[in-house]
Amino acid sequence: MTETLTSPTALAIDETAADLLFRNARTAMQWTPDQVTDDEIEAAWSLAKFGPTAMNSLPLRFAIVRSPEAKARLLELMPDGNKAKVEAAPATLVLAYDPNFHEHMDTLFPHAPGVREQFAPAVEMRDTMARTNALLQTGYLIVGLRAAGLAAGPMHAADYDAVDAELFAGSGFKSFLVVNVGHAEGAGTEYPRLPRFDLDEVTKTL
Amino acid sequence: MTETLTSPTALAIDETAADLLFRNARTAMQWTPDQVTDDEIEAAWSLAKFGPTAMNSLPLRFAIVRSPEAKARLLELMPDGNKAKVEAAPATLVLAYDPNFHEHMDTLFPHAPGVREQFAPAVEMRDTMARTNALLQTGYLIVGLRAAGLAAGPMHAADYDAVDAELFAGSGFKSFLVVNVGHAEGAGTEYPRLPRFDLDEVTKTL
Repeated sequence: MTETLTSPTALAIDETAADLLFRNARTAMQWTPDQVTDDEIEAAWSLAKFGPTAMNSLPLRFAIVRSPEAKARLLELMPDGNKAKVEAAPATLVLAYDPNFHEHMDTLFPHAPGVREQFAPAVEMRDTMARTNALLQTGYLIVGLRAAGLAAGPMHAADYDAVDAELFAGSGFKSFLVVNVGHAEGAGTEYPRLPRFDLDEVTKTL
Repeated sequence: MTETLTSPTALAIDETAADLLFRNARTAMQWTPDQVTDDEIEAAWSLAKFGPTAMNSLPLRFAIVRSPEAKARLLELMPDGNKAKVEAAPATLVLAYDPNFHEHMDTLFPHAPGVREQFAPAVEMRDTMARTNALLQTGYLIVGLRAAGLAAGPMHAADYDAVDAELFAGSGFKSFLVVNVGHAEGAGTEYPRLPRFDLDEVTKTL
């Protein structure tokens, strides 16, 4: 296990982007007073939306929580250890997946008509597929937020059923992660970087 | 729904990186004859390993399948529609999660001793947590592969239990996705880009 912050071969992106998106990016704990603008979220989504999902199913949905009133509603549903983090963040995204994503498949996957009807009775499969692909999209979104100059702080809520009832009532969306977003206060305010596995610790070559 | 390939505000990365990682990146179907080198996989991992996971749990594991013999073993376990894709790709990554990730927590999360022991009996929780966080890491890995100049083609195997028995026997790892990797043959060989949701179609602001 090492803390290598350089890459072993020429990357196809410049060092600034590699540092910003991955090597120097950290889970932010302290924020500047700057607000998160609609344009910044839009910029992050303008990239993250292109990340691949199974059958272009795109099941990720999210609430952008910024108003004091909505923040207060969300705070009630966070574990004690995460309440202050949500309170401090300029914006908090509550991520959910849509188990009824199949209703959009005629638009999203137009060359294969009938997917919507075929998936309709497969309730359990749809739930798994939606959660799986929304998690992939969460990876793209976290990178996309950083590409838009924002920092992300992912964390868990205490009770996602309660979050669904409070923020996504009537939609059928199922929340699974909370991500604080803002402009990170300079280096040194985060926890020390934790170790990462080297490639040979997590792979085998066949 | 639109096909906007520009971003509404200044990004913190240059346009070349935004195009390479997201806007012009496509699920590759055709490959140049160039091999995928160890250094290229290492370069992708040198970035992707830094993406955040819950409690730094880093549960993603993968097999790098390149030899004709290993390719043949994997081919047997792919659905008919995906066999030719695996056969054509210079390398194929078989992604899995490690439900026993807790055994590494003393190293990965050293400031909170006891996590390993606390998680040991929570078999079901560990399985869910490992799969969830390995999927986040898959998002980072797909972006990391692109940053290393590679293209990725994610797809499903036919029977992941069979894949586990064939490629991950004795490890306890559970496979969940197969990703072809290589150097994409020039533009125009992919399927047409499918539509994406606009931000306001997948979010609400509170």
